[in-house]
Amino acid sequence: MKLSIIIIGDEILLGRVQDTNSGLIARTFGACGHDIVRVFTVGDSYDAIRNAVESALAVSDAVITTGGLGPTRDDITKQAMMDIFGGKLVLNKDVLGDVEALFAARSLKMNDLTAMQAMVPDSCTVIRNSVGTAPIMCFEKEGKMLVAMPGVPYETRFMLPQVLEKLNAIYGQGLNSHRELTVSGIGESHLAGMLAGFEDKYAQEIKLAYLPVPGAIHLRVDSHSAEVDIDAVFEELKGLVADFYCGNGSLGVAEVLLAKLAAHGYTVASAESCTGGNIAHLITAIPGCSDYYRGSVVSYHNEVKENVLGVSAQDLMAHGAVSEPVVQQMAYGACRVCGTDCAVATSGIAGPGGGSPEKPVGTVWIAACTPQGLWTQLLHCHGDRQAVIERASALALKLLVEHL
Amino acid sequence: MKLSIIIIGDEILLGRVQDTNSGLIARTFGACGHDIVRVFTVGDSYDAIRNAVESALAVSDAVITTGGLGPTRDDITKQAMMDIFGGKLVLNKDVLGDVEALFAARSLKMNDLTAMQAMVPDSCTVIRNSVGTAPIMCFEKEGKMLVAMPGVPYETRFMLPQVLEKLNAIYGQGLNSHRELTVSGIGESHLAGMLAGFEDKYAQEIKLAYLPVPGAIHLRVDSHSAEVDIDAVFEELKGLVADFYCGNGSLGVAEVLLAKLAAHGYTVASAESCTGGNIAHLITAIPGCSDYYRGSVVSYHNEVKENVLGVSAQDLMAHGAVSEPVVQQMAYGACRVCGTDCAVATSGIAGPGGGSPEKPVGTVWIAACTPQGLWTQLLHCHGDRQAVIERASALALKLLVEHL
Repeated sequence: MKLSIIIIGDEILLGRVQDTNSGLIARTFGACGHDIVRVFTVGDSYDAIRNAVESALAVSDAVITTGGLGPTRDDITKQAMMDIFGGKLVLNKDVLGDVEALFAARSLKMNDLTAMQAMVPDSCTVIRNSVGTAPIMCFEKEGKMLVAMPGVPYETRFMLPQVLEKLNAIYGQGLNSHRELTVSGIGESHLAGMLAGFEDKYAQEIKLAYLPVPGAIHLRVDSHSAEVDIDAVFEELKGLVADFYCGNGSLGVAEVLLAKLAAHGYTVASAESCTGGNIAHLITAIPGCSDYYRGSVVSYHNEVKENVLGVSAQDLMAHGAVSEPVVQQMAYGACRVCGTDCAVATSGIAGPGGGSPEKPVGTVWIAACTPQGLWTQLLHCHGDRQAVIERASALALKLLVEHL
Repeated sequence: MKLSIIIIGDEILLGRVQDTNSGLIARTFGACGHDIVRVFTVGDSYDAIRNAVESALAVSDAVITTGGLGPTRDDITKQAMMDIFGGKLVLNKDVLGDVEALFAARSLKMNDLTAMQAMVPDSCTVIRNSVGTAPIMCFEKEGKMLVAMPGVPYETRFMLPQVLEKLNAIYGQGLNSHRELTVSGIGESHLAGMLAGFEDKYAQEIKLAYLPVPGAIHLRVDSHSAEVDIDAVFEELKGLVADFYCGNGSLGVAEVLLAKLAAHGYTVASAESCTGGNIAHLITAIPGCSDYYRGSVVSYHNEVKENVLGVSAQDLMAHGAVSEPVVQQMAYGACRVCGTDCAVATSGIAGPGGGSPEKPVGTVWIAACTPQGLWTQLLHCHGDRQAVIERASALALKLLVEHL
């Protein structure tokens, strides 16, 4: 099945809100062997929505839209759908009951705008939304399907399995013809050089894609034909990148870390200055992390480094907060105050202010300790504040991963 | 100027990497009065890139692409551009010098693939990239411009001002016809009800958009005509939402908090259990936060709550970690150990595991304290782990904002 995705909403088009729905939908359907053709992002404008839907239907078997279904006046998606697929708005009593029940459960009072959610085109079938007020509407025309979903990210996450089931039932699952693995510790250019022979050998049968993420590269193999033994090709690839291999699938470095901690039965903490809690956030985003993660100290101010983590005031004075002795003591301090086997620590200058000729913006000391020892590294991160925070976080986690 | 944006890359299309470039470009050009028409996301496929560029050129004055310019084999953007705009690859000595200098500065060894970055179509003019290896290429055809930028987010962030300057010089700045403000503490439906009269009154002259973000709604006024006194209309809107007004522009709740702390001369810390450092991360993402933010304790494990924050073992035993007395003591503990005037604290069940009939997943206690007192709130967050973390973080920051 060829699938296009349309993200509807001024807030997304204008860059006010980050779209995460398109990625989730692409991953979910891609894993079932469906082809993702294109993602369109359009504003809350009748013409833009209608044009995007019509051009997506022209190149795809199915289209999923998210957004544009809220109760406010800038939502005109239903009208565009009715002008394409026909039908008129009718009261859907199931949906009205769902909306009433949801408002009652949350002790909210319904107003007329919210009740409008229960007015649904009679040209669609409805998947009832158990976590929000806008129903999911499935339209069909000339053998092609359009599924209109609400835009609230957790509603999309929650309801997507039912949409997948419905579309799989209609179109069947695709050839599950891709495999993915995660490598870390090698640059994209060098990796490409190392794999040039492999790519040449299989140029007719497979496509190899390099998908860089902070601290790692996901390598994705797509086979072009059902005759290729994708598993054998994948094993060959795995052998070639063995020195940098972290695991199958598109793992983040925090996931790689938790898997390694589990293998050793170790616990972990972090002590963060310039990364400001981002390392803790990356770890705690993963369900079940509490088996291995115990806590963190974000020691932005030097007094917190001294009083909570026990960093020496003398070393802070003599070497500055961004220095090897300080980041070492931060890592040990995190282990001690959180009672863990391992820790990572960061101290650096994320910018835009705070740099000096000796320690320009992007200078970061990172440390990792395990029961076997402590390692440090001096980073010179490029880019702005966000880039420095992301890179230092990823590389600190990677430093610990490499020594486990 | 009508601008379309094309994001190129399998990693984005397949949902492996989150696109942030389109939002940045949209915000940057939108603020200069340009119209964002559409965002397309396509994979590293010649046909998809070429089709997207041609259909974007058909509906826009200018097109910006990001991505598809890396040194690996899946990057075929240059070929697609040459087939649309003409030209052939020639060595650009300036670019080669830039790439060599960049590699030398980072003590890296260049390989042949990287040197390929200096081969540039002779049909484009180049904006030299001072922070990466891929140059920015500007093509022109029939009075329409296409600017091809690299996909690395910080390179886009760094180089975008030069692209804006170039396009502004060609097309002029647009009518700066929109204003935006941030409200907090009111739902979208109720806000729409409150503003129905205002929308009716100005139905011919302006468009009002509701742009929800966690913990707040951005209200955006767009005027349709140069005859409208946009500032007067905006002041009227501001008066209507005065009770919920946080500030002009599209502020995040952490930015609202820092502005209020600055007004009082207060400092802040956080003590986080279920939000796992996300509150610290939201605050420290903002440049200059170190004037008001001193640190955080992520007390995931109960021993960290006791040993670092001084939460009573008896209360943890009697009431559980997710309870009002514990979150109160966490907030006071954060103030004490970080030496701050104010703090926020969270303790809850982010899921998917850990819920019980009495305290289901989504149950979160939050607390905020200032020199004037301490406030707590019990949340029942809907959605999955990520939704609970985001909502609890935003509402904890909001609780403190409301009491400053």
